[in-house]
Amino acid sequence: MDTILIGIAGGSGSGKTTLANKLIDCFGSDEVSILRHDNYYKRHDEIPFEERARLNYDHPDSFDTKLLCQHIRMLKQGQPIRMPLYDYSQHNRSDQVVVVQPAPVIILEGIMIFADRELCDLLDIKVFVDTDADVRILRRIMRDVKERGRSLDSVISQYLTTVKPMHEQFVEPSKRKADIIIPEGGKNQVALDMLIQRIKYQLRHNRRMQADGKQTEENKKEEA
Amino acid sequence: MDTILIGIAGGSGSGKTTLANKLIDCFGSDEVSILRHDNYYKRHDEIPFEERARLNYDHPDSFDTKLLCQHIRMLKQGQPIRMPLYDYSQHNRSDQVVVVQPAPVIILEGIMIFADRELCDLLDIKVFVDTDADVRILRRIMRDVKERGRSLDSVISQYLTTVKPMHEQFVEPSKRKADIIIPEGGKNQVALDMLIQRIKYQLRHNRRMQADGKQTEENKKEEA
Repeated sequence: MDTILIGIAGGSGSGKTTLANKLIDCFGSDEVSILRHDNYYKRHDEIPFEERARLNYDHPDSFDTKLLCQHIRMLKQGQPIRMPLYDYSQHNRSDQVVVVQPAPVIILEGIMIFADRELCDLLDIKVFVDTDADVRILRRIMRDVKERGRSLDSVISQYLTTVKPMHEQFVEPSKRKADIIIPEGGKNQVALDMLIQRIKYQLRHNRRMQADGKQTEENKKEEA
Repeated sequence: MDTILIGIAGGSGSGKTTLANKLIDCFGSDEVSILRHDNYYKRHDEIPFEERARLNYDHPDSFDTKLLCQHIRMLKQGQPIRMPLYDYSQHNRSDQVVVVQPAPVIILEGIMIFADRELCDLLDIKVFVDTDADVRILRRIMRDVKERGRSLDSVISQYLTTVKPMHEQFVEPSKRKADIIIPEGGKNQVALDMLIQRIKYQLRHNRRMQADGKQTEENKKEEA
């Protein structure tokens, strides 16, 4: 099986998760698998909860990207992987895992995925979702306060002390690695349609390869 | 016939012409037609050559965009058009025209095409080719000095007095209208492949529509 890896990066609140979710909704789980960089945040059992809450989660070093790269290589070789699952309420990796099956198309979603050279080199299509900073912080407030139960003060403080400076240091410059830049992410139907057609092409290509493979095998049997 | 119009915009020297040319090279002339906004520069027979050379060609008003919009509507209705042909050596519209046939996909290429509201509303897919200003001016120097026989001094003077300020006033802000942004234009194979797949989808869609139309006609004949 030929596997392509599509990376979807972009700042916090840019709409990259919405875009990734809309894409996987269009395909079967045997066609497209999804990985999320957030699930590869490093485990910090040695640090108490209060300290973990104050860690800088917006630096590339906070991710176990080595493990992610290893998982991607396994998937590309046709092996299933056990993706860790991050627990936001505990600011730590949970004890659960999600089994991710190999598929012709793998989507990797994450803020910092273009900031790591090794990871970047594994990506076949690099998509950067670009959204204005004011829109992004408003979305982050809505998500963290309403869905994740954090206080407005803590969200603003985290944004100004780590999210914004780390965005400017790592995320914004990594946009230069992108093959295409999509303004507004999940709401951009024209760009979504284009990605869907690209994925469909890959699926047709793989089906043709499989059919050719079967044909060759049958020919061999007949010849034998 | 269902026609989609793909607009390719971007600053001078961004690589939009290379991208447009690479796209049309992949398809037959009955599948993809091309329009170039430059060909719609207004005619200035009333002004002597020396004065024409000093006109501001980087302002939206220097184009006959009304005529272009009319031509696009004609093509969408299945009628051929007579596209004017601009003569750079004369700084004026030539007396020649190019007949452009209607096609399932029409590409419109031009610096200012997202800056005009009426034109923008006619575009189904808006692609902006984004390239750093230093790379763009270097490409412009190479093109205008080597291919168009202009002096280095005149290229630099024109760049600083009109091209750059007009870029900042009209081209850069029009990037916000884009559905997708492509860094580096014609050299970006991943983005090119994605556009090719999107166009192929449109061509398949049109062939299906034609086949269904023929089927309906045959059914009608049988019923009659």
